[in-house]
Amino acid sequence: MEQMAAGYKNVSTAAGELDLGFARLDVDRAARTGDPEVVFGAGKTPEQVVGAMRALTLAHPDRLVLATRLSDEAKKLCRTELSGVEVDDIGRTATLGRPGPSRGRVAVVCAGTADLPVLRECAATVTVFGSYADEIVDVGVAGLHRLLAQRDRIAACDVVVAVAGMEAALPSVLGGLVGVPLIAVPTSVGYGWHLDGLTAWLATLNSCAPGVLSVNVDNGFGAGVAAARIARNAGRPAE
Amino acid sequence: MEQMAAGYKNVSTAAGELDLGFARLDVDRAARTGDPEVVFGAGKTPEQVVGAMRALTLAHPDRLVLATRLSDEAKKLCRTELSGVEVDDIGRTATLGRPGPSRGRVAVVCAGTADLPVLRECAATVTVFGSYADEIVDVGVAGLHRLLAQRDRIAACDVVVAVAGMEAALPSVLGGLVGVPLIAVPTSVGYGWHLDGLTAWLATLNSCAPGVLSVNVDNGFGAGVAAARIARNAGRPAE
Amino acid sequence: MEQMAAGYKNVSTAAGELDLGFARLDVDRAARTGDPEVVFGAGKTPEQVVGAMRALTLAHPDRLVLATRLSDEAKKLCRTELSGVEVDDIGRTATLGRPGPSRGRVAVVCAGTADLPVLRECAATVTVFGSYADEIVDVGVAGLHRLLAQRDRIAACDVVVAVAGMEAALPSVLGGLVGVPLIAVPTSVGYGWHLDGLTAWLATLNSCAPGVLSVNVDNGFGAGVAAARIARNAGRPAE
Amino acid sequence: MEQMAAGYKNVSTAAGELDLGFARLDVDRAARTGDPEVVFGAGKTPEQVVGAMRALTLAHPDRLVLATRLSDEAKKLCRTELSGVEVDDIGRTATLGRPGPSRGRVAVVCAGTADLPVLRECAATVTVFGSYADEIVDVGVAGLHRLLAQRDRIAACDVVVAVAGMEAALPSVLGGLVGVPLIAVPTSVGYGWHLDGLTAWLATLNSCAPGVLSVNVDNGFGAGVAAARIARNAGRPAE
Amino acid sequence: MEQMAAGYKNVSTAAGELDLGFARLDVDRAARTGDPEVVFGAGKTPEQVVGAMRALTLAHPDRLVLATRLSDEAKKLCRTELSGVEVDDIGRTATLGRPGPSRGRVAVVCAGTADLPVLRECAATVTVFGSYADEIVDVGVAGLHRLLAQRDRIAACDVVVAVAGMEAALPSVLGGLVGVPLIAVPTSVGYGWHLDGLTAWLATLNSCAPGVLSVNVDNGFGAGVAAARIARNAGRPAE
Amino acid sequence: MEQMAAGYKNVSTAAGELDLGFARLDVDRAARTGDPEVVFGAGKTPEQVVGAMRALTLAHPDRLVLATRLSDEAKKLCRTELSGVEVDDIGRTATLGRPGPSRGRVAVVCAGTADLPVLRECAATVTVFGSYADEIVDVGVAGLHRLLAQRDRIAACDVVVAVAGMEAALPSVLGGLVGVPLIAVPTSVGYGWHLDGLTAWLATLNSCAPGVLSVNVDNGFGAGVAAARIARNAGRPAE
Amino acid sequence: MEQMAAGYKNVSTAAGELDLGFARLDVDRAARTGDPEVVFGAGKTPEQVVGAMRALTLAHPDRLVLATRLSDEAKKLCRTELSGVEVDDIGRTATLGRPGPSRGRVAVVCAGTADLPVLRECAATVTVFGSYADEIVDVGVAGLHRLLAQRDRIAACDVVVAVAGMEAALPSVLGGLVGVPLIAVPTSVGYGWHLDGLTAWLATLNSCAPGVLSVNVDNGFGAGVAAARIARNAGRPAE
Amino acid sequence: MEQMAAGYKNVSTAAGELDLGFARLDVDRAARTGDPEVVFGAGKTPEQVVGAMRALTLAHPDRLVLATRLSDEAKKLCRTELSGVEVDDIGRTATLGRPGPSRGRVAVVCAGTADLPVLRECAATVTVFGSYADEIVDVGVAGLHRLLAQRDRIAACDVVVAVAGMEAALPSVLGGLVGVPLIAVPTSVGYGWHLDGLTAWLATLNSCAPGVLSVNVDNGFGAGVAAARIARNAGRPAE
Repeated sequence: MEQMAAGYKNVSTAAGELDLGFARLDVDRAARTGDPEVVFGAGKTPEQVVGAMRALTLAHPDRLVLATRLSDEAKKLCRTELSGVEVDDIGRTATLGRPGPSRGRVAVVCAGTADLPVLRECAATVTVFGSYADEIVDVGVAGLHRLLAQRDRIAACDVVVAVAGMEAALPSVLGGLVGVPLIAVPTSVGYGWHLDGLTAWLATLNSCAPGVLSVNVDNGFGAGVAAARIARNAGRPAE
Repeated sequence: MEQMAAGYKNVSTAAGELDLGFARLDVDRAARTGDPEVVFGAGKTPEQVVGAMRALTLAHPDRLVLATRLSDEAKKLCRTELSGVEVDDIGRTATLGRPGPSRGRVAVVCAGTADLPVLRECAATVTVFGSYADEIVDVGVAGLHRLLAQRDRIAACDVVVAVAGMEAALPSVLGGLVGVPLIAVPTSVGYGWHLDGLTAWLATLNSCAPGVLSVNVDNGFGAGVAAARIARNAGRPAE
Repeated sequence: MEQMAAGYKNVSTAAGELDLGFARLDVDRAARTGDPEVVFGAGKTPEQVVGAMRALTLAHPDRLVLATRLSDEAKKLCRTELSGVEVDDIGRTATLGRPGPSRGRVAVVCAGTADLPVLRECAATVTVFGSYADEIVDVGVAGLHRLLAQRDRIAACDVVVAVAGMEAALPSVLGGLVGVPLIAVPTSVGYGWHLDGLTAWLATLNSCAPGVLSVNVDNGFGAGVAAARIARNAGRPAE
Repeated sequence: MEQMAAGYKNVSTAAGELDLGFARLDVDRAARTGDPEVVFGAGKTPEQVVGAMRALTLAHPDRLVLATRLSDEAKKLCRTELSGVEVDDIGRTATLGRPGPSRGRVAVVCAGTADLPVLRECAATVTVFGSYADEIVDVGVAGLHRLLAQRDRIAACDVVVAVAGMEAALPSVLGGLVGVPLIAVPTSVGYGWHLDGLTAWLATLNSCAPGVLSVNVDNGFGAGVAAARIARNAGRPAE
Repeated sequence: MEQMAAGYKNVSTAAGELDLGFARLDVDRAARTGDPEVVFGAGKTPEQVVGAMRALTLAHPDRLVLATRLSDEAKKLCRTELSGVEVDDIGRTATLGRPGPSRGRVAVVCAGTADLPVLRECAATVTVFGSYADEIVDVGVAGLHRLLAQRDRIAACDVVVAVAGMEAALPSVLGGLVGVPLIAVPTSVGYGWHLDGLTAWLATLNSCAPGVLSVNVDNGFGAGVAAARIARNAGRPAE
Repeated sequence: MEQMAAGYKNVSTAAGELDLGFARLDVDRAARTGDPEVVFGAGKTPEQVVGAMRALTLAHPDRLVLATRLSDEAKKLCRTELSGVEVDDIGRTATLGRPGPSRGRVAVVCAGTADLPVLRECAATVTVFGSYADEIVDVGVAGLHRLLAQRDRIAACDVVVAVAGMEAALPSVLGGLVGVPLIAVPTSVGYGWHLDGLTAWLATLNSCAPGVLSVNVDNGFGAGVAAARIARNAGRPAE
Repeated sequence: MEQMAAGYKNVSTAAGELDLGFARLDVDRAARTGDPEVVFGAGKTPEQVVGAMRALTLAHPDRLVLATRLSDEAKKLCRTELSGVEVDDIGRTATLGRPGPSRGRVAVVCAGTADLPVLRECAATVTVFGSYADEIVDVGVAGLHRLLAQRDRIAACDVVVAVAGMEAALPSVLGGLVGVPLIAVPTSVGYGWHLDGLTAWLATLNSCAPGVLSVNVDNGFGAGVAAARIARNAGRPAE
Repeated sequence: MEQMAAGYKNVSTAAGELDLGFARLDVDRAARTGDPEVVFGAGKTPEQVVGAMRALTLAHPDRLVLATRLSDEAKKLCRTELSGVEVDDIGRTATLGRPGPSRGRVAVVCAGTADLPVLRECAATVTVFGSYADEIVDVGVAGLHRLLAQRDRIAACDVVVAVAGMEAALPSVLGGLVGVPLIAVPTSVGYGWHLDGLTAWLATLNSCAPGVLSVNVDNGFGAGVAAARIARNAGRPAE
């Protein structure tokens, strides 16, 4: 993931990089791994976010650029400065460039609207990384009837991403319902002593359903990258 | 809970106690709290367990005595030495004395046979403390159809005790299905890094279903005491 | 518990819900579990709190609505906008609708005025969930005479909720004094390294008094839900 | 995962299960999720392991049976009692039944021979769940030249499982070299204060390479289940 | 505290020490701090314990020697080999030499017989360090009447040591009853997830009673050293 | 310790208390424990601090009142409103009333000026609780010569309080130099990952010097209370 | 490290110190350890930083003064008030005085620009403590080709400092490439649940490369002090 | 570090390794890093240890071989089977081959005989890696006079390794006395709740003496490797 620091100078520079003064962008990664480029927005000024997205687009006009964890100010500046940008207020993401045809299908599921920002970050990532994201919200385990009503829709996907906070029971219940690859994203949503998502994280790693995979707390981006890679290879014709 | 140490002497003795040489038994608690007496077997020799049960029975012929966490040797000696004793091999408990009519009904539910020892300890405790224990096993969340099949039976009880290890999703799913008081017993059952039951414990305390109550890891006894107190007061005629 | 996110749209909607634009309210839970509806105020704007309470009242004019964890601004707006609302400044709660006759009696006890906000949240929840809350304050273990003076009053209730921070010795002392079901609410009240209430939490789960039940740190709401369910079933005539 | 307890009786039995006296086997899971059946060997007597494998084979003669975490005694009894069984001493697994043609290819990679038991458990699981496991050993980051020599072989697989203990740097280095889906298995291998694998676990969840997926410490089985599901769907013709 | 290792040689030796081959004993400490000498028995063979005690007695015939944490074998060998030794089976201590007149009075109090080994280690230490230990057992907070019955006896001492496991509520209750200096010794006594005494430890450090002092878990020796130093200076005539 | 909450009303009041509307003050504690009264300033408005101090002085004109953890605003208001008050800017304390003759002598020692606020809180508490505090600053272990220069001065006291942050080596070094009772106060002073004082706390509880007593992190008040109680009893004539 | 507190007075002062009213500076350390003097800027006002630097320069005109962890305001005031000062915006350091010829060579290496502030603090420290710092940036393990390109340059130094956040794989990879002494500085750089650098810290202490040394999280200063001491002694002629 | 597993076969083999059937030995590391080869004995049978040492000696007759963490059985077999071997009973090490002239001088210091095994492992490693180890024992901080007596001897070395358990105050005190590079080895030596050496570890990383470097708990080997590398480069003529 690209990172930057203001005022950076006078240090050694390796080959194959783009120097923006405040940031060095790795424009070779895509060739190595087949993925688009991403700007991690946390800790960056709005100007830095916009500058990084613009530079990456100039360097690779044929490729999508995704920015994540944007502040309200950064979202506003993206809308003003970057023509054609897609900004998602809930998911705090911005996308530049038009996606080509997607391959494979990813169900992105969450237990409640509090988990929605993570679900949306994940869905945007899936899209940018070349697959289709089917968002299914409010299917928590405390209201099983809603979840059961979506079973077939989820089972029809190539991979399912289960976003869940608090005690994160959702991945286990899903793992008993469908046999597709399952990625759990624990979130920091909770009340009282939930240890900033540790509870959800431990739950996903101790699921009674075999084969549940985990990423870090709130890491919708990481889950999206992995899900898209899996779904793209699943051999399903593009949608 | 009564406790003991071999060779104990020369220390001050308060009123209202029974001195066995190796243990001081509080024979007044029942009058204060309305409960029978319990021998916690962990760390005791078989002889100490049998001696304590016998002494309590002599002191209170009209009352039940429960012993928990018995070793195989202690279970064997109880069977040999205590006439009329009931020993449960799975739950590691022994009961002396005949229960009177029970009041109220407690559903004791668990996710798998690995949790069975805790479920049986809880059920024995419920019985000794004067209520009826309805044991329901193998209704884990990875096989929802079995759990849903037991919904009405559980809802018909005065309180439900959900015994669950690993990620402990069961209490949350149950909490969405029934409205009766719900006590969760996290267990130390798990594989890999489950932190000796901390994962399950944290899950029960962060359940998305409101009103879930918890006890310590593997504490079937504590849950049974509380469940019986609740069920006995529920006004249901004796069974 | 109902949750919400601003700007939410374009996602699948399950049947039986009320869509407010910024929130989806589950109006069927009461039918499933017999409980009123609750708005969790933390992280919501005052407008969202008021909007959610109004919508729930319109959908279910015959049912009470409780809002918890309200900011000062939300409390103020509730008073201005919602006629007939009851706002508790200490407990940070708002109640809409008139409670019917209560069933059963819950003693809600705390060790000091620092624990009062949690006690009041619990008491308001007990009331809304249909039972009577008897509040008893400043009966900490460091002043035993005050606690002993309230013993009979506590023993006369169907269930006792002990709210306690710091080392949380209160539930253990209470558990030795009375035999009614006992729920401990550890609080994050403390000085120095108390681990945000972990100390109190661990204490409640390791109480030497058998049968003590716990909820998460500061979770007066959860304790209130459970206590009301227990007390309502206790068969005592309505007060 | 199937679990059992000796002496189990007198409890409710749900439909669709096989009762062995000491264990209840779920013979319907495969129909629901498309996977074979597994016997978790830890905590079971050799007789229980053999009995469970035999019963599952009788119930489903057309399906493979995998047993994991076998003791030396259980491995010996499997070899004596189960004709046609495949036992792996290092991976502590036993397999009954002949695998059909595999679909997809899974690279299973580890840093040193101390991680070999987990790698072998993973590889056996991949095979039983219907994919091909390509084992690559001793490619730790402290000897980069060996790892770089295997780059193309790894990149040619549909998914890579990186098994790594101590500081678990391997998944990050691999994630920079190849773009295929990557599952990290942290192991409890280490010297001194490594917290039983927590260090490796935290490292996999904080990898600087995007899209790294994790399972629990030493959970070669879980990683194998997930990897096979991913690889089987990857559309590559059977090998 | 003196420590030793078998086969030790060829290393630099500072002045003022006694070399036993397997141990170097600091015979100057008493001159510096006014205390007797102590042999920490954990991890030592019975022969090493006896040898160390004998050597210290020879070097300082006028001073007491205390050995702690003795195994059963070490206790037996002490009795056989050291004439005039006092061995306490419960406290796992051995004392050599006759104490002179004691100064000051230490109440050593505990909640249950499970805490008795720590109480006895503390009491033996108090005695050897020159003060009088008044042992008061079974005054746990779950039976307040017993504790209240001992209030005046405790208040009459110069310092009180409260030994308590599980949730360790005893120091807080005592702190509200008496105004003498109070040292809490958390113990590792408990059931389920008590974190090897961390729960008790945190409780003692977060006591609501001001001025409670703590030592490490199960450290009856350390508490005894401190208590004797405090009591000896309290100016009370020798008993 | 007295605590308060604004708007408090309608709750049961035990005998022997002073009700200020926003706070209930326990004016009987002194009679029970022999100590003055204390206002814990953290979380209180300046008006509440001043009001509480004034009320306590009115109720007990012959007794000292100490307020701790005062904000800058509270310190300012104390100076304006309370005639004769002593405010310590570094220690964040205010004292009302004139101390009588002190008994005993407490050395209060710290390693650096960063620990000074805790040292001053401790010294003020010692004074108010009736003993003399001898403050010795900047005697950290990294500059041994300074510490050794103060050895005799420290040894001449009845008790020593060692205030130390970071790795808290000071108590161990002191414990080897002097034989007087020793209380360690770990502080939260440190750089990087020191766990908010846990490092210092663990160090004090694992000191290689026997008999070191601990209080909670930064708890200068608690250490002062204990130290004064010990020193007052030490029989030294008043200074 | 020098520390200070405003308003400090009336306490004992040991010999060999400089009293500034708000701070006591140890001007003898250099004579004892051969190092320059350092002002730790965190928690100090800009005026205190400038005052301390000025005083140290006056006391020791022939010696360098380093200030670390400066706020933006402190950096600005240093530039205004201290003639000849060198301020590094990224590293948050200020240096006063001209370094003499350096001895030895330290490679200071980091994985990304997010780690740059720690790298720069380390490099400034190395310089002030008398060695040459060779800064090498953006050689993370996810882009191995860049790191391999710098191998010879790093191997030519006397010691290497590897600054790394997230999973901190860099020290292990470096340890396999070069045989020079290696100091790892874990940083608090990361996303999601990285425990404020604990993950990186644990990784450095569990490196599979033997001989890796660690300092605290983000402690570029400590690593720089150690590295300079090692490099200065390495016998390489001054650069 | 070389590792092995019994029965290993059928897996890919990289170039430049020695295959023993049960272990693959990296015989190229020395060429890459300039160090001898090491056999980590924990978890190996005596036969495996001896076989590995013999094979490494055959492959590199001119190089030393070190084996660490040997069991008593392994030490005995080394003595029987390997002619010319040096076995250290306390340090649990075996050395094969004659060391050449050493360069540089390492002071290896510890606080008590309980830390001696780690000190000896460190000293053996220093020797094998080509430097001189000066062992200084029993210089703990509780007996400062002994430590001060060794000050000049320690200051005359090129690097000092401070081995310390419990609260690990020794490195801080040493850091204030001498200016040579300082490596701290925290040990798991302690009584009660010391967290298996975490206390000592945290202490070394939070030392008030600047520039203290750390390795993992009990890792005498790692410290020895690093210390020898530093001392060998220090330009001191061979001893």
